[in-house]
Amino acid sequence: MQIANSTLPHGAEETTIRATAPNIEDIRAAAARIAPHAVVTPLLESWVLNERVGGRILVKAESLQRTGSFKFRGALNRLAQLNEEERRSGVVAYSSGNHAQAVSLAARVFNTSAVIVMPADAPRVKVEKTRAYGGEVVFYDRYTEDRALLGSRLARERGLTLVPPYDDPHVMAGQGTLGLEIARQAAEAHAELDALLVCCSGGGLTAGCALAMEAESPGTAIFAVEPEGFDDTARSLAAGRRVSNEPGQVSICDAILIDTPGELTFPVNQRLLAGALAVSDNEALDAVAFAYDELKIVLEPGGAVALAALLSGKLDCRNKSVAVVCSGGNVDAEVFCTHALRIGPDHQR
Amino acid sequence: MQIANSTLPHGAEETTIRATAPNIEDIRAAAARIAPHAVVTPLLESWVLNERVGGRILVKAESLQRTGSFKFRGALNRLAQLNEEERRSGVVAYSSGNHAQAVSLAARVFNTSAVIVMPADAPRVKVEKTRAYGGEVVFYDRYTEDRALLGSRLARERGLTLVPPYDDPHVMAGQGTLGLEIARQAAEAHAELDALLVCCSGGGLTAGCALAMEAESPGTAIFAVEPEGFDDTARSLAAGRRVSNEPGQVSICDAILIDTPGELTFPVNQRLLAGALAVSDNEALDAVAFAYDELKIVLEPGGAVALAALLSGKLDCRNKSVAVVCSGGNVDAEVFCTHALRIGPDHQR
Repeated sequence: MQIANSTLPHGAEETTIRATAPNIEDIRAAAARIAPHAVVTPLLESWVLNERVGGRILVKAESLQRTGSFKFRGALNRLAQLNEEERRSGVVAYSSGNHAQAVSLAARVFNTSAVIVMPADAPRVKVEKTRAYGGEVVFYDRYTEDRALLGSRLARERGLTLVPPYDDPHVMAGQGTLGLEIARQAAEAHAELDALLVCCSGGGLTAGCALAMEAESPGTAIFAVEPEGFDDTARSLAAGRRVSNEPGQVSICDAILIDTPGELTFPVNQRLLAGALAVSDNEALDAVAFAYDELKIVLEPGGAVALAALLSGKLDCRNKSVAVVCSGGNVDAEVFCTHALRIGPDHQR
Repeated sequence: MQIANSTLPHGAEETTIRATAPNIEDIRAAAARIAPHAVVTPLLESWVLNERVGGRILVKAESLQRTGSFKFRGALNRLAQLNEEERRSGVVAYSSGNHAQAVSLAARVFNTSAVIVMPADAPRVKVEKTRAYGGEVVFYDRYTEDRALLGSRLARERGLTLVPPYDDPHVMAGQGTLGLEIARQAAEAHAELDALLVCCSGGGLTAGCALAMEAESPGTAIFAVEPEGFDDTARSLAAGRRVSNEPGQVSICDAILIDTPGELTFPVNQRLLAGALAVSDNEALDAVAFAYDELKIVLEPGGAVALAALLSGKLDCRNKSVAVVCSGGNVDAEVFCTHALRIGPDHQR
């Protein structure tokens, strides 16, 4: 994690320090740093899932993390490294909801304050929880305003430290601790992982896990999984450079709708990924229903896309050992019941 | 687990062998026996729950067990000890659903067959899963027929081995393995448990856990938690002998509606329990909703009564370390959404 002399990728034009991606030592240091505050989430095995896909599947139930998603890891690792002055002033983050809750609670853990810029149409449960953890929520219009600009303006005006959702070496290192855990837990379960599937948006979790697995389980093929229409990582891998999604797309996977892969995350993913897969909203919702019915865990659609890729046969797992990250479980009850479990009067998708 | 010369408690009038309760060595042997097939379910900590009750709460998420409930432990331990002839003939069990699924899958694990006597109004999901695991389902009318008699008649007529739901030393020893895990996992989490709350019906899980904790964590006070109206263990403890519930009660906690404590289980519970608590249907449903919202796990009402006792303040947990068993997650989506999450047109409870 050397420091180069350029601008930060996300709306931090007030600084000229540019970070580079973390390395395995940064991820190991992050693991030690977050250990007192984060949950070591279980790696679950479901024989029903094994039979369904004909392989051995290990489910990293990261929805059981504090704040209901992996985002808490990165937020903890970033906020743990604030200096005294930064801590007194507080932090600012922009997020559709999971990073919002994570930064909000991490701020409480480290006795500082957080302002969170959230889209006005963010899931109600995510807004409520962000506030409950103590964060101050500032809404923006997803269609007319630029959240990164809004975030950096708040940072400048109020002297806050910006905590980017993925394009930050400390955040990436924090997310990578999930990969370290998978490697260790798979070894404890006597599984040699042929593949690891990760839910992918800006690519911080994917890149962090890929770096961890490169060191701990180099024979494992890493796949990013995205929602159809938001498969910017897949398209960027194909193009050999960062490209954006077509405008006007919609998806129920609110947690992972990013337009373009990160500047810091994409080069890591380009170097380390075996490929990227995309799933439809219906496949994601079927995975949420499967997780309810068979795994007995609550997943949000965006946190279920990697599982959806397995269940819909996007990757041949026959006679393979495959780990799959279920990355979050913050879903409004109405979406969960109406769309995934198809309960209620208008249960057509 | 000595063998005395009397009759088995549940409809096994064709035999004159009487069993006694297991001891800690039986439970340890059961743990080794089921290890290749059962999940070591996680002991989760939720800071939100901690703050809510003012203590340190460790949640044994046994809903993540194979078949979605603790019943798989006891079924495995019983079926592991069938002799060759018994295995060829198959087993029979009666159950409202969780023991049904457990025996059905355990029969598949040990390459034998299972006939399951289920109430005609059992939750659809439990009937479907019992069949999916390979069990042959025979329905009875909960209000006019005696399931124990039906089970023993089937056992006699078809030469099957009866697997009782709780009043059996092997089944009790199997359920006790959950207590062993809690003791070990709590120690790993540096928690000295002041109390353990267990969902209680026939008392097999409660007695098994109490025996395990007596050996491994003797300072822990064990509480049974029952649905209101089905608090036969509480009333039996108060009476100093096994008494039955008032007739005509109803509860949404279908998994744990037993009329009278077990013959084998009650003396153990009488000796080892610190007390018994009862919760209302609404308290159980609120706990299911809390588990969805905060713990991100799927619980059925009967599997959530111990958590409900905590949330509704039935036990003062301030500055205490308390483990709570969440014993099952097999709940129809309609009950889950309509009654617990209150989604849909008629969401009044």
